[in-house]
Amino acid sequence: MSSKTPVPAGFRGVAGNIGIKDPQDDFFAVVSEVPAHVSAVFTRSRFAGPSVLLSRRAAADGRARGVAVIARNANVATGAAGEEHAREFQERVAAAAGVPAEEILVASTGVIGRPYPMDKVRAHLDGLPGEFPAADLDRAAAAMMTTDTHPKTASARVGEATVTGIAKGVGMIEPDMATMLAWFFTDARIDQPVLDAVFRRVVDRTFNALSIDTDTSTSDSAALFANGLAGPVEPAAFEEALFGVALELVRMIAADGEGAGKLLEVRVSGARDDAQAKRVAKAVVNSPLVKTAVHGADPNWGRVAMAVGKCSDETDILPERTRILFGDVETYPAEATDEVLARAAEHMKGDEVVVSVDLGIAEGGFTAYGCDLTEGYIRINADYTT
Amino acid sequence: MSSKTPVPAGFRGVAGNIGIKDPQDDFFAVVSEVPAHVSAVFTRSRFAGPSVLLSRRAAADGRARGVAVIARNANVATGAAGEEHAREFQERVAAAAGVPAEEILVASTGVIGRPYPMDKVRAHLDGLPGEFPAADLDRAAAAMMTTDTHPKTASARVGEATVTGIAKGVGMIEPDMATMLAWFFTDARIDQPVLDAVFRRVVDRTFNALSIDTDTSTSDSAALFANGLAGPVEPAAFEEALFGVALELVRMIAADGEGAGKLLEVRVSGARDDAQAKRVAKAVVNSPLVKTAVHGADPNWGRVAMAVGKCSDETDILPERTRILFGDVETYPAEATDEVLARAAEHMKGDEVVVSVDLGIAEGGFTAYGCDLTEGYIRINADYTT
Repeated sequence: MSSKTPVPAGFRGVAGNIGIKDPQDDFFAVVSEVPAHVSAVFTRSRFAGPSVLLSRRAAADGRARGVAVIARNANVATGAAGEEHAREFQERVAAAAGVPAEEILVASTGVIGRPYPMDKVRAHLDGLPGEFPAADLDRAAAAMMTTDTHPKTASARVGEATVTGIAKGVGMIEPDMATMLAWFFTDARIDQPVLDAVFRRVVDRTFNALSIDTDTSTSDSAALFANGLAGPVEPAAFEEALFGVALELVRMIAADGEGAGKLLEVRVSGARDDAQAKRVAKAVVNSPLVKTAVHGADPNWGRVAMAVGKCSDETDILPERTRILFGDVETYPAEATDEVLARAAEHMKGDEVVVSVDLGIAEGGFTAYGCDLTEGYIRINADYTT
Repeated sequence: MSSKTPVPAGFRGVAGNIGIKDPQDDFFAVVSEVPAHVSAVFTRSRFAGPSVLLSRRAAADGRARGVAVIARNANVATGAAGEEHAREFQERVAAAAGVPAEEILVASTGVIGRPYPMDKVRAHLDGLPGEFPAADLDRAAAAMMTTDTHPKTASARVGEATVTGIAKGVGMIEPDMATMLAWFFTDARIDQPVLDAVFRRVVDRTFNALSIDTDTSTSDSAALFANGLAGPVEPAAFEEALFGVALELVRMIAADGEGAGKLLEVRVSGARDDAQAKRVAKAVVNSPLVKTAVHGADPNWGRVAMAVGKCSDETDILPERTRILFGDVETYPAEATDEVLARAAEHMKGDEVVVSVDLGIAEGGFTAYGCDLTEGYIRINADYTT
């Protein structure tokens, strides 16, 4: 069994069905055979689950070998037993892989408020092979899906090294809360402080630029493991490769948003600084009225103006120097004639809608990613009954 | 023609059809026959229209006689001509009422980006009677409706005085952006600084506690006119009466939210202070996942926990001291057995769903008002084409 998605040197893994809910794979672990650097970011939710707390601790010293995930059960709001179960899961995976427990990150996604079926978890982990085979990252990506409609993987080469990412997430999900999980593996050799700076910059421009429905999971986690087996890389080239991989995953997640029909990309330019651009881009990409207009392929620039206007303490934003475009069609301040609106609507009928806002202040920019808001989102989230 | 909704002494008015779009009333003015105090609050949008700018100036000195509204056209993003038109509208209404222009607030709601048909506006205003008859506040409330399904009025007595409010607003609307407009008239005599403090406190607990879809109109305005003709009132009693009237209007607006099937009331208690309670209440009332769960009558307390958890820098919020209830049924941390969930679901099948969150920290509290998120919202906002 081999991974179609390239696997960087030295990453081994297992995947399988614990039987949490159905016969699909609901477990995987990927572990470096040699010590590795790690950089990781986690949800800031006040209701973060025990897996997040354990992983945050595991990643704190910048060293970790890999990650293990259980799907179909988030192990959140499960009290002291949930903490104990997460720790036991971490310890048993580490023991099977022959590495220290504190070098394994753990994550979990699915229903909340229900304990793991620990008998099944133990039985499955007891049956793992003594030595893990080469990792299958396609199977790992599939094993952590919830309402995702397809596994999400992306990979790039940088010099002699490979960087591969796998992700899941489609909104907030089945039945309680979704989770965005993203794991990156590379055999590039790169100092941990540099790795950390690169990873945080990339996450800020990719996963932190993604918004499906403004809701924040209690389990969101992303980490990058670098084991150095392919030798040193040029940090700038590595950052560019990692950015490309992360962006590809983010676009897949946005397009696979719950009920989504279209990817929505909001490009803000001409801002006072990047932070202002980010704030405006997020206001637009999150606006229910913009998202429904995108769904209806309606070049309703007034709703974009409204969403920009919500950033009310950004007093240097002035209507008279703001420009709004759908695709490359300017609808404000250019007169939105029937012909202009028809061209903008044509762009919006595609699978990828780009809304651009130029604030005309300075050089700050940011691009945010999201999706349209559809009857499908309502159906998925309203018609499920606990 | 008389108003069923009580009209405080000394308020005169006109309403009629300018012909902006259809033969329904699309204009009204209500003006006090004697000088009056005013307190007013407006949208903070950076794309606020010229009506808001004019009204803000008119209300700045605490004196104003009344308000005039045009519906079916927001006069927003209409450039220099739009500013000129708003000023002319203000001047002509004031002239017809025989009061200074700077004592009339103006507001407008409807489509944006299109100029007023000024010929029709002038023709209609030229035909107004030399002296305005007694105001008909039911007709005024109806004249400013957009996608509202019914006019919204409420009234209370306080001592010898009457306080009556009229409002419109159902989300962000047809076809571009909605507007929440609320006007209060009273014959109570009350000093302007007291009036202002009372009004701002009441608005903070009512209109600022209301959220349909997180989007903010470019035209939201609310004002309270007090002409003193009924003599002095006890400020605390007046505040209570005004709060009751405003809350009734807010509940009407929430229940009439676009596509809404249910009123959603989120009560947060036990917070560090009222500001923290407000923040948490708004996070819950605005969560698309909570709103869809309410639509589906699903007592999905995990989504409420998720929404509370989003307030990530409120580090004193701890899962272990938080309680979540639907109606009076505790679902967390009490074990959510099938029987408990069934009782919670029963509450959620009603027209008014109350979600309570006790943070267990101190005595701060806040209640927010909203509505569920339904396929109807998507239909109203996606299927309209500009």
